[in-house]
Amino acid sequence: MIIELAKNYGFCFGVKRAIKKAEQIKNAASIGPLIHNNEEISRLQNDFNVKTLQSINDLSNEKKAIIRTHGITKQDLALLKRKNIEIYDATCPFVTKPQQLCEKMSDEGYEVVIFGDENHPEVKGVKSYVSTKAYVILDEKELYNIKLPNKIAVVSQTTKKVENFMKIVNYLMLKCKEVRVFNTICDATFKNQEAILELSQKSDVMVVVGGKNSANTKQLFLIAKQHCENSYLIETQEELKAEWFKDKKHCGVSAGASTPDWIIKKVLERLEEFNKENS
Amino acid sequence: MIIELAKNYGFCFGVKRAIKKAEQIKNAASIGPLIHNNEEISRLQNDFNVKTLQSINDLSNEKKAIIRTHGITKQDLALLKRKNIEIYDATCPFVTKPQQLCEKMSDEGYEVVIFGDENHPEVKGVKSYVSTKAYVILDEKELYNIKLPNKIAVVSQTTKKVENFMKIVNYLMLKCKEVRVFNTICDATFKNQEAILELSQKSDVMVVVGGKNSANTKQLFLIAKQHCENSYLIETQEELKAEWFKDKKHCGVSAGASTPDWIIKKVLERLEEFNKENS
Repeated sequence: MIIELAKNYGFCFGVKRAIKKAEQIKNAASIGPLIHNNEEISRLQNDFNVKTLQSINDLSNEKKAIIRTHGITKQDLALLKRKNIEIYDATCPFVTKPQQLCEKMSDEGYEVVIFGDENHPEVKGVKSYVSTKAYVILDEKELYNIKLPNKIAVVSQTTKKVENFMKIVNYLMLKCKEVRVFNTICDATFKNQEAILELSQKSDVMVVVGGKNSANTKQLFLIAKQHCENSYLIETQEELKAEWFKDKKHCGVSAGASTPDWIIKKVLERLEEFNKENS
Repeated sequence: MIIELAKNYGFCFGVKRAIKKAEQIKNAASIGPLIHNNEEISRLQNDFNVKTLQSINDLSNEKKAIIRTHGITKQDLALLKRKNIEIYDATCPFVTKPQQLCEKMSDEGYEVVIFGDENHPEVKGVKSYVSTKAYVILDEKELYNIKLPNKIAVVSQTTKKVENFMKIVNYLMLKCKEVRVFNTICDATFKNQEAILELSQKSDVMVVVGGKNSANTKQLFLIAKQHCENSYLIETQEELKAEWFKDKKHCGVSAGASTPDWIIKKVLERLEEFNKENS
């Protein structure tokens, strides 16, 4: 069985940056998971004493707070600033951007459509910067019964598919005189998605490595599944089952933007073991 | 043969307004045809002494100038203002809008994509208000080899199809961080297009009445032709041929946004005559 890694996979710029910051800062508390990867969160906890709190209310006598890659709400940031704590911002710059845009567009009087999952922390954070009216949607159909204003701004969750973003923009073009489109979808996500699309078309089994609560990992998995029926989403090599690879000729491997290289390496090693066992 | 008029057809708001102005002003000169309809232009010349000049250079001792519905260039307007002549603006407000937007967007540093035909007077006028860089295109493919800026504004010729405008916007979304979309396509055009689409699907012969140099009339004709093979574009009832309607059951009739009602009436009368001749 050929084992082939996607041309682009794994950690994005923002995640690499956040981990590096956390390792340097040490002994800090992150409000919510720093990145969406349980294994890496454990490693940072064990090796660098970076702990994960559920909310600002859980802060007790910590000296350093680190803001997660997905960002926090404007209100939480204000609360944090009032506490006696050093703040380190590990918000991905690609997430800070839509936050700033929402604030600026609100100041200029625009209501804002946010293409994203309203329960995702990134979207909660971005939405909190809208002071006019925010419409958080996953599908343009959610706007059908809404009386939209003459001018509107639109941003996207960084990990969404651009084709769906286009559908929303196309609908808004019919309803609003001005649509101010900010394509805030991240390049890294694009590249990982393009690479898995290509790889899944020539593979008869696909392994996608990443956090099961990671939006971009799930997106990669969905693309793989569309083109390769035998696609599996795993968090660690321990979940791999020998039977998945029986009689398979081409195994494609990719990983979400929050998946560290050391986990991918272990997955590849386990796959090589299956190969040896079968030869 | 049933003769059916499209639910929406003919003169739009801007054209009705321009004709009314010309009739009131009288003895005026239009720089370029006031509207795209030769018959109506002749009527205004004969009944109200409104003449058509090819360019500003052709002005001699006229006292009144009337600006055509499609507008003129910013440069021509400046030239006109320097002459000893009263200026009456019959530019359609839906054309003035993209002119103003191009000026405003340029002032804010945006380059501007104009979806339209670069030889059309409306587009020439609109483009003249861009002081940064204007890209006049009919298809997004024309942008493929162009290095686009990070932020761009986009407007449309009023008579274009929104589906094609969307394709251009969708392409720009992939290439630019900000796309500021102004949907300057006119409602009247939409409505006439929707109505002819519906009518042509149930007709076995279609007559589209309008100027052969009118962009929106040609657009109506193309839509009709897609759904009804026997579609004809005529300027007056004199072009109608009895053979077109032989054995036909349902004749759809529509007219471009510059076609006056008195011409449509004559067409309908001629069609009724064919009906009588065949009965």
